[in-house]
Amino acid sequence: MRPSIAPRTESARSKRPAIVSAAVDRFGSDGFEHTKWAAIADDVGIGQTALYHYFESKAHCLLTIMRTELTQSLERFERVTESIEDPTEALRAAVRSAYEGGPRDALQRRILQNHLDLLSTPRASEKEEQERQKARVLVREIEDAWTGLIRRGVQGGAFADRDPKLSARMTLALVVGVWRWYRPGGPRTLDEIGVLTSDAALRVVS
Amino acid sequence: MRPSIAPRTESARSKRPAIVSAAVDRFGSDGFEHTKWAAIADDVGIGQTALYHYFESKAHCLLTIMRTELTQSLERFERVTESIEDPTEALRAAVRSAYEGGPRDALQRRILQNHLDLLSTPRASEKEEQERQKARVLVREIEDAWTGLIRRGVQGGAFADRDPKLSARMTLALVVGVWRWYRPGGPRTLDEIGVLTSDAALRVVS
Repeated sequence: MRPSIAPRTESARSKRPAIVSAAVDRFGSDGFEHTKWAAIADDVGIGQTALYHYFESKAHCLLTIMRTELTQSLERFERVTESIEDPTEALRAAVRSAYEGGPRDALQRRILQNHLDLLSTPRASEKEEQERQKARVLVREIEDAWTGLIRRGVQGGAFADRDPKLSARMTLALVVGVWRWYRPGGPRTLDEIGVLTSDAALRVVS
Repeated sequence: MRPSIAPRTESARSKRPAIVSAAVDRFGSDGFEHTKWAAIADDVGIGQTALYHYFESKAHCLLTIMRTELTQSLERFERVTESIEDPTEALRAAVRSAYEGGPRDALQRRILQNHLDLLSTPRASEKEEQERQKARVLVREIEDAWTGLIRRGVQGGAFADRDPKLSARMTLALVVGVWRWYRPGGPRTLDEIGVLTSDAALRVVS
C-alpha cells in the first residue's frame, strides 16, 4: 500500500510520519479539543517552528489524518473486493477489512468518525480547505464504491431488491458505529467484531 | 411530555427555550465551531449578560442540548414500547419513534451525534461537567433499554440467539447513522426512513 500521508518526494528525514502518529495518539486518547498543539512537538522532539513546517495548525493536522483514513478506507475496499466475484463474499470481505490493522489504525478510524462534521463547513485556511475538499470527495467515492457492490448483488439476485444507496449507507453505519464503543482490551477482538458485523451487514442486504 | 430543558421552577418569561432553539438552528446549520456565541444573543434579542444568566459558555449550551436530546430519546423509547407486548412490534415502534418530530428535532439529533466525543473527556467548568455526567448516564440507560427489549425478544424466540448488547449497539448505529446524511427536503421523508430503518433493524436481530 502506498504511504498516504507523506508525499513521495519528501526526504527520508521527514518528521511528518512521527508527527501524524503522535497526533493520532493524542487526539485519540485526550481528544482533539484537549490536545495542545505544542505537546505534539514535544512528543516528536522538535520545536514548534519545525512543526509548522509540516502542518499550519492543529486542525490542518486533524483534517490530514481524516483524509488519510478515508484514502486508506477506499484502498482497503478496492484491494479486498477486486478479486472476489461473488457479491456476498465481497461484501463480507469489505466489512471485515474495515477492522484490519493495529490499535493506532483503530484510533485513526475513531478520530475520523468523531470529527466528520468538520467536513460540512468551509475552512478559512487554504491548506485546511484543500484537505476538507479532498476528504469530501473521498466520502462520496467510498459511498459510491459500496453502493456499486451492493447494486451488483441486487442485479445478480444475491441481495434483495432494495435501494442500493440506502443499503450502502446502512452497511457503512453498522461498520463505523463500532468505533463509538470499541476500546482495545475489551471482551471482543476486532477480528471477532468484523465477523459479527459482516454477518449483520449481510442480513441487512438479504 | 415534560419539558426537559427548562426547569419547572423557571418563570414564564424565561428566555431559555428561545436560546436553546436559536442555538440548535445555529449549531445545526453553521456548525458549533463556526457559531459565535454573541450571534445567539442577537437571534434572541437579548444582551450577552442576559445570555450568561442561562448558559455560562457555548459548550455549556451544546452539552445541555445533547443531554436534552438524550433525555427525550429515552422518553420516546419508553413511551412507545411500554404498551407493546410483542418484541418485534416494540422494536419497530422504537426505531420509528427516533424519526418523529419536525426539522428542529432532526437538527438536534444531528448535533448530538456530531459531538458525542465531547462526552469522553472531562470538562473544566463545573456546569459543563454536570451536563456531561448526566449525558453519559443517559447514553448507558438508552443502550440498556434497547438491550433489554432485544434480550426479551431473544428469550421469547422472536429474535435470533445473539448477544443482545451487541445487537442493540448495531440497531442504534443504524438508527443514528441516518443523521449523517439526512437533510430536510431530500428524496425521502423521515417517516419513510423510519419504515426502512425499522425493517433493516428487524433483519439485524432476526
